[in-house]
Parts: sequence; C-alpha cells; structure tokens
Amino acid sequence: MGSRNVMSRLLVLSSVGFGGYLTGSYLERRKLIRTADYVNTGKLEESFCSKPGLPIFGTVSAATPIPAEAQSSALVNVSRVGQIMKYGFPGLDNIRSYDDYVLSYDRRTRVAHWVFEHLTPATVKHNDAVDRAKSDFKPDESIHPFFRSLNTDYKGSGFDRGHLAAAGNHRMEQKHCDQTFYLTNMAPQVGVGFNRDKWNHLERYVRKLTKQYPNVYCCTGPLYLPRREDDGKLYVKYQVIGSNNVAVPTHFYKVVVMETTDGRLEMESYVLPNQKIDDGTPLTMYQVPPETVERAAGLLFFDKLARNKLSKINGKKV
Amino acid sequence: MGSRNVMSRLLVLSSVGFGGYLTGSYLERRKLIRTADYVNTGKLEESFCSKPGLPIFGTVSAATPIPAEAQSSALVNVSRVGQIMKYGFPGLDNIRSYDDYVLSYDRRTRVAHWVFEHLTPATVKHNDAVDRAKSDFKPDESIHPFFRSLNTDYKGSGFDRGHLAAAGNHRMEQKHCDQTFYLTNMAPQVGVGFNRDKWNHLERYVRKLTKQYPNVYCCTGPLYLPRREDDGKLYVKYQVIGSNNVAVPTHFYKVVVMETTDGRLEMESYVLPNQKIDDGTPLTMYQVPPETVERAAGLLFFDKLARNKLSKINGKKV
Repeated sequence: MGSRNVMSRLLVLSSVGFGGYLTGSYLERRKLIRTADYVNTGKLEESFCSKPGLPIFGTVSAATPIPAEAQSSALVNVSRVGQIMKYGFPGLDNIRSYDDYVLSYDRRTRVAHWVFEHLTPATVKHNDAVDRAKSDFKPDESIHPFFRSLNTDYKGSGFDRGHLAAAGNHRMEQKHCDQTFYLTNMAPQVGVGFNRDKWNHLERYVRKLTKQYPNVYCCTGPLYLPRREDDGKLYVKYQVIGSNNVAVPTHFYKVVVMETTDGRLEMESYVLPNQKIDDGTPLTMYQVPPETVERAAGLLFFDKLARNKLSKINGKKV
Repeated sequence: MGSRNVMSRLLVLSSVGFGGYLTGSYLERRKLIRTADYVNTGKLEESFCSKPGLPIFGTVSAATPIPAEAQSSALVNVSRVGQIMKYGFPGLDNIRSYDDYVLSYDRRTRVAHWVFEHLTPATVKHNDAVDRAKSDFKPDESIHPFFRSLNTDYKGSGFDRGHLAAAGNHRMEQKHCDQTFYLTNMAPQVGVGFNRDKWNHLERYVRKLTKQYPNVYCCTGPLYLPRREDDGKLYVKYQVIGSNNVAVPTHFYKVVVMETTDGRLEMESYVLPNQKIDDGTPLTMYQVPPETVERAAGLLFFDKLARNKLSKINGKKV
C-alpha cells in the first residue's frame, strides 16, 4: 500500500473523528510480525474431551433446540456451519449457529462480536418464495434475559436495527431470511446516510462479489474505537440505548475472503464509521489493513489462512 | 434491603458520577425474575464431545504448558481449578487457569473479564518463604501479541498496575504469588485513594473473611458503566492507555460467596468507582445487588447456586 493511499484513507477516517486510532495503530504496529496464533489454533486438531472443573461446552450451542426426529437436518446444519467457518472462528465467546450464518454474542454490549456468512451465487440468488417483508425483528430467546436486547430498546432511540448478516445474503429459504431478523444479529446503526445508504452499498458490493468468485466468506461486526480528546488522552466513548443498555458501536467492519475458481484467495477489509457518509465517497477509501481490525476488535480473522498465502489484500498483491 | 439503605448507597455512587446507571438498572429491573440460565447451565451435565465445524476447545487452556513428566502436578492443578470454580464459571471467554486462580481475558479491552479465587485460612496465611517483592510484573505470553498488555502500556500513564486477584491471597508458594503478577491479572487503577487505599481495604476485608468462614470464593473484575450526559443520553466512556490501548475501567466489582462450617452460604457484592475514595466511607456503602453487576458485566456469578438458597445477600436475610 503506497503512503499516499494510506494518507487519503486516513483523511476520510479522521474527517469523521476517529482517524487517530487507525492511523496510530497501523503506523505503529506494521512492524509487528504476525506470529503463531496461540489462542485459536494448534489445539483444535487434538482429540480432546471434557476435563473436570472446565465446563467449556456451554459456550457453543445451536440457537434453536434440535428436535430428536430432525437428526438429518441437524447434520445438514452442522456441515453448513463447517462450510461457513471453513477458515476459522474469529473468537469463541457465546457462539450461536443458525441455519445459514454463525454469530458470537457479546453479553456486555448486547451486540454481537461478529457474524460469519458464506455467500455463493445460489445463496444470494433472487427467490420469489423469500420475502424479507414477511420477517419480523424478534428477541433471541437463547440469550439469558439479563443480556438479551429487545425491540423496545431501539424504539425512539433514533437508531435503526441494522443487520450484521444482511437479509439479502440469505435467500435460499424464508427461514434463513427470518433468522437474520433475530435481535442478536442487529446493532444500532445510523439510518439515513449509513444503514440505508453507504453500509447498504458495502453489503451489495460483497453480494456482487459472488458474480466473480464462487465462494465469498464475510465476517461483520461492531467496533468501539478510541479517539483523542482535548486533554491529549485517548477515550473510548459510545452511547447505550434502551433499558438493556444496548451499545451503539462507533464503527462497523467487514472482513471478506474471496475464493477463485482455481482456489486462490483474496481478502478485503473495511471499517466504516457509524454515521452519515457522503454517497460519493468510494468504498475503497474505507479499506484498512485486516490487522488493524483484529487489534481493535480483539479477534483473529481467517486464522487458518496465512496472510502471506493470500494472493491479494485490499486489491494489492501480497 | 430498605429503601433508606438503597438511597444512601446511591448517594455515594452518584457522587462519583456514575450512580444513574446503578440506580436505574436496580430499580427498573428488580421486577425481572432470574430465570433459568440458558447459557451456563443445563448443558454442562451432558456428556458431549467435539462436533464438526465447532472448534470450541481453543478457549480453555492452562497458561503455562504442562510438561509430560509433570502429569501428577497437572492433575493437582486441574482439581484445584475444580475447587476454585466450584459454583460455576461467570463466563467462558478466553479462560486461563493458573495454579491458584482462574481468569477470563477480554481481548478487546486487554483487561480480564473476571478472575476467580478460592480463599481459605491456609492460602492466605502469612508464609515467610513467600515475598511479593520477589515477584515481577510480566506479560502473559499465552495471550496473542495483538491483545497482550505490556508494562510499557502502563508506564507514564498515571495509573497503577492494579491486581485483580490480590497477591496477598496466594501465600502458599512463591509461584502462586508470582503468577498474580501476570499482566493479564492487572487493570489500570487509580493509585492513591483507590488501589493503595479503599480497594486495598476491600481486599483485606475479603481476606479476613477466612477467619470466620472456612471457604471464601471471590470473583473480581472491571466494569465500564454508562452515565448520563448533558444531552440526556447515556454514554459509556473510558480512557485507554499505551500503544496496546489497555482500557481503564470506570469501576471494579467483587462478588464474594462465603461458606460456613455447617455448609450455609452467604454472598456479598461490591462496586467501587476507579477513583480516589474517602477513607472514611464504609465498604457497605458500595454494596449493590449481584444482579446489577451481572447485567453490567455480561456475566452470571455463582450460577450453580440458586440465589434464594443463600442465607444472606449483602448482610440481609434472603
């Protein structure tokens, strides 16, 4: 990435008030070599079962109980999870697996850490039988009531219930579309100029990638980025809404991996501020190094892929 | 809890600027009955092994690799973890088990979600062979470098490296004391008036409980509480320090369960603001209902214990 390109990107980000963080972290930390992932790899290949005193299993669950007679569909769902998560889990906190996407829930902010989707030409294809107008926003009953966001939290807040996994990415069955309307998949987003505009453009852009790439893996989530205040110190500051104090993220990210027909892999990584964005600003201005998102989110994206094995990151040869 | 008691407590909390949250959440939500814990219970009794596509095991690990020849000490450690965590895990994100305490790390804030200790007269007893002056603050190498806090992050910040699991609670062996100096066990704390004073008083108070109770279970962690600003909206705001953006919590909590010789259980729950506190303010002024801490932290404390089975909460009969 040329330094002019970095500078222009930073101008866009700093114009919305949070540039300092991304600048600082990118410039300071590009020297740090990505080392072995202690946390998310290595142990996964081992066959491993319950240890006394370590109830590690409560954290992963299907959001909907699987009835005994539906074993075959359960198997289908498990293998779909395997497809969606092919290149690794970004983190392992409070995982929920739905039929066509996977989510990690942050019980403190009441907003997901990340949602993970696998897009193909088939899953995003228009289907007359599927209509998002038939889907209702609904609380996710699999979340303990202390940490569950509700429709009333958003009411009168001025924020949209913004999808993280986009409804338009899940068109195979009405049920898939419906499941994107769980409030676990929502975050408070600025409506006009963001959710209904630039963020939507990014979603459509990712969906269109399936015209060129047979497999597109998309991880989406919130960020709570610090900014420097007048006293020279960095602060994280975000609003919370409703009686459940649902956090309003300062930014949202998407990290996308595209698989070509001949098995090459490319990555793109975006951070958009949760505010009105000028329609004329090209999406490429919001590209950031994936490492920057990882540090800010506390997550490791596509950690089964070595970054230097990717053929492109943000359109540039690696 | 009498309403006068609630009011005086709230005066203390609001005098430090964050009372609105605790008031609101306590008063609004006391009606909500604690329902079954979907997340942390129920599934734990089942025998359950790896599912394809769900690498749920990376999240729990001993912080130090266990050498093959030390199998017996590994077993001792595992059973110690079982003792410490007897009444349930508050959450399951990035667990680390040390020899005498257990920790859950928040990779986004670079500060633990919680640390859990089991105190007995033996573990807190003065031992001439153990000296905290021999222990060094050290980074926890088991944390990926993207998310690892360093001594340099604290340097010049004006904040102390405040212990979450107190060094004075781990006096059986020098190694136990040393392990409380991992930076995973530290949070940026105001020094004078807090870490070195009121917070220390609370730690000493908890330690002294072992004179009356043979088993004391203590969960400690940070909070990032919202407060209402002039525009009438609630915001979470906290400073971050160093090149790793280590979060400075707005508050800290301790939730403690005491086991009597005849097996009765009592609970106490405290929230202290991370700022200078007048020495004359009694600790009881910082007692809050445990549910309030749970909602704010996104955690469930001692969830293997039904609250109505406790004989006392915050000194009051249940």
